[in-house]
This record gives sequence, structure tokens and C-alpha cells, in this order.
Amino acid sequence: MTATATPPDSTDSPRRGRPGYDRETLIRVCVEVFNVHGYDATSMGMLAKHLGISKSAIYHHVDSKEAILDHAVTDALDALEACLDGVAGNGADAGAQVEEGIRGTLSVLVEKQPEVTLLLRLRGNSAVELAAVERRRELTRRLGDLLEAAQATGAVRTDVTSHNLARLALGMINSIVDWYRPGRGVPGEQGAGKMIDAVTGVVLGGLRG
Amino acid sequence: MTATATPPDSTDSPRRGRPGYDRETLIRVCVEVFNVHGYDATSMGMLAKHLGISKSAIYHHVDSKEAILDHAVTDALDALEACLDGVAGNGADAGAQVEEGIRGTLSVLVEKQPEVTLLLRLRGNSAVELAAVERRRELTRRLGDLLEAAQATGAVRTDVTSHNLARLALGMINSIVDWYRPGRGVPGEQGAGKMIDAVTGVVLGGLRG
Repeated sequence: MTATATPPDSTDSPRRGRPGYDRETLIRVCVEVFNVHGYDATSMGMLAKHLGISKSAIYHHVDSKEAILDHAVTDALDALEACLDGVAGNGADAGAQVEEGIRGTLSVLVEKQPEVTLLLRLRGNSAVELAAVERRRELTRRLGDLLEAAQATGAVRTDVTSHNLARLALGMINSIVDWYRPGRGVPGEQGAGKMIDAVTGVVLGGLRG
Repeated sequence: MTATATPPDSTDSPRRGRPGYDRETLIRVCVEVFNVHGYDATSMGMLAKHLGISKSAIYHHVDSKEAILDHAVTDALDALEACLDGVAGNGADAGAQVEEGIRGTLSVLVEKQPEVTLLLRLRGNSAVELAAVERRRELTRRLGDLLEAAQATGAVRTDVTSHNLARLALGMINSIVDWYRPGRGVPGEQGAGKMIDAVTGVVLGGLRG
């Protein structure tokens, strides 16, 4: 690491910045740093130190700290929305749609754990954060709609409103980003699949009453 | 609000600072500001603005921003630990202890919602935060121990480890700090009691399988 004014990569390669980081990798490392220290407590200087490159090298890839946040939470939200879009179009009965929504959401949480962790911790301190928080709320409303339909068929308990059941279910579902680590104990995809089956069972047990 | 150098309260009253704030009230307002903007994103200047007093008036009550955090999360942790201490000593069977632990934890979350919200969002960026995070982990372990005993009696499902069941249950339980507002819909204590009954039922339904 030298502090010269020479850019780390001044060739006309399409991949700019220090060799070893493409934009996706750089963003992923930054998201992990945000998740350890908190987004607000993380400075561009801290990101540069973790990446082992200069701040100006980071600016070759992204315009700002907020642009990194925006990219990551948009990625998570797009995947979560696509999951519910798939459920809505599959023609299954309401109870099966609820199960598929839970299972699909858990899969996205495993696949995009760092991005979802960041999303779940947003406070709404900026326009980017507020827009993400609103999209997150809309996901809760959509799960609530699935639960309301399942209440009407008797598949889901009715002593709690569908919207509050959605919040409770997501509280349980979202907790996995704080404790589940892929590949710990059981290898690879099989481990994630087993965890998803087990957590889906616990959530459904609560919803059925 | 004038910017004179005169302290807001220079009498020899035992209550220092601007009339209207005792230490407890001041801390509670600060905790609410932390919860809106995030602890790291909140400066002493922002706290002063919300309180309508000068930064030096805040320093009459507390030594630092971290001292406010410490006071609030210690308050929450003491109450949560006291709840589990009470459960452990009540002589009930394991299944009933689990139910009482869930119900008691929910009651603390209602009673100390701002303090628990702050506690749940800590990242461990300082010695005070790390100590609080460790006490929080110990609470999860203690609930896991209650669940393990209840698994042995057949009251709780055994297809998920007791420690992971504790994490899932607390994910659902802790979610209430983000959405439950006392007195909304049903008045006062009755509303909280009904919510606690309902959420306890959903959590137990999931644990029983």
C-alpha cells in the first residue's frame, strides 16, 4: 500500500480499481463492513482500509457510500419481491402460497444474507433509506394479504390480524440473518435446505395455532 | 432558546438542567432520538436540539452519549434477566416455564420498549456495547436451556436444536418493539395483555410444532 497519486490501475482494462476487485466484489466487502460496524458508523476511510485500497480507488467503482447501500438493498428487495411475485402467480391454494412465500423468503435470506442484513437494519435517515424502508413495508403488506386469504380458508389462525401475523412471521424468518451461517455443521446446499425446512415448519406451526 | 452563556438553571435546586427534565426523562427522550436516527448517526447536538436545551445542559445530567446508552440498555437487560430469574425459581414444569419466559419477556418489551429497541440494535462498536451484546447472548442461552428441558418432557419440538428454537422465538418476540404501540386500538393495559396473550400463543404454536 503506497500513498502515491498514481491510480491503482491506469490501463484501459474495463475493470478499474486495484486488480482483484470487480465492482460486485467491492460492494460485497463494503456491505460486510457495514454489517459489522453499522452503516452510519462506517466511513469511506474504514472501507478503504478493509479493502486494502485507497479511497480514490473506491470512487472509481462507486459514487458514494450511499450508492453502495442503494445497490445492495435494491438487490435484496428485487429478489424478495420476485419471490412473492412467483407465489402470487402459481395458482396454488392460499395455505400453500403462504408456505411457499415463507420458504422463498428464507431462500433469499440465505442467498443474499449480507444484503438483507443491511436492509433490515436501515433507519430511514436519507431518501435512499426511506425508499428502501417503504419497499420493505410493502413486502410485509403482501405477506399479510397472503395470510388474510389463508385465514379465509381456515389454514391460518384468526385470533391475530393478518398484518400482525405477517410481522411476527417475518420477525422469526428475518432472525436467521443474525445466526444462520451456511455450511456450518451440515455441508453446503443440503444444510441450507434442511434449515429452511425446519424454520418453515416452526413458522407454519405458529401461524396455524 | 437563547444562546447566552447563562446556564438554563442556575438555582441550587437539586434538579439541574432546564426545568422540565429530570435525568430519567432526559435519558428517555435521548433513547427515542437514538431509535429514530440510529445511535451512531445521533450527535450530542441533535440530542440538544430535540430536548430544546444546550449541549452543556445535557452534560449536567450525563457524562457522554455512551453513558446514556449504557444506562438505557442496562435498564432493559436488568429487567429481562429478572424475568428469567423469576421463571427459574418458580418450580413449574418445563413447558410452563417456557410459556412464562415468553410472556415475561413480552411484558418487559412492552414496558421498556424504547430501551429494548436500542438494545436490540447494538452492533458492539465499543466496550459498553460489547458487554451489552454479551448479556443479550446469555439471555438467548438461558431461554435455550428452558427449551431444552421442555424438549426432554415432550412439550417442545425436537427437530430444531433448543438454541436455534430460542433464536427463532426471540426473533418473533423481539419483532414487537418495531410494530406494537401500546394503547393503539384497545385502551391501556388490557390492549397490551391481549397482545401478549396472542403473541405468546403464536410463539408456542411454533415451538410445539
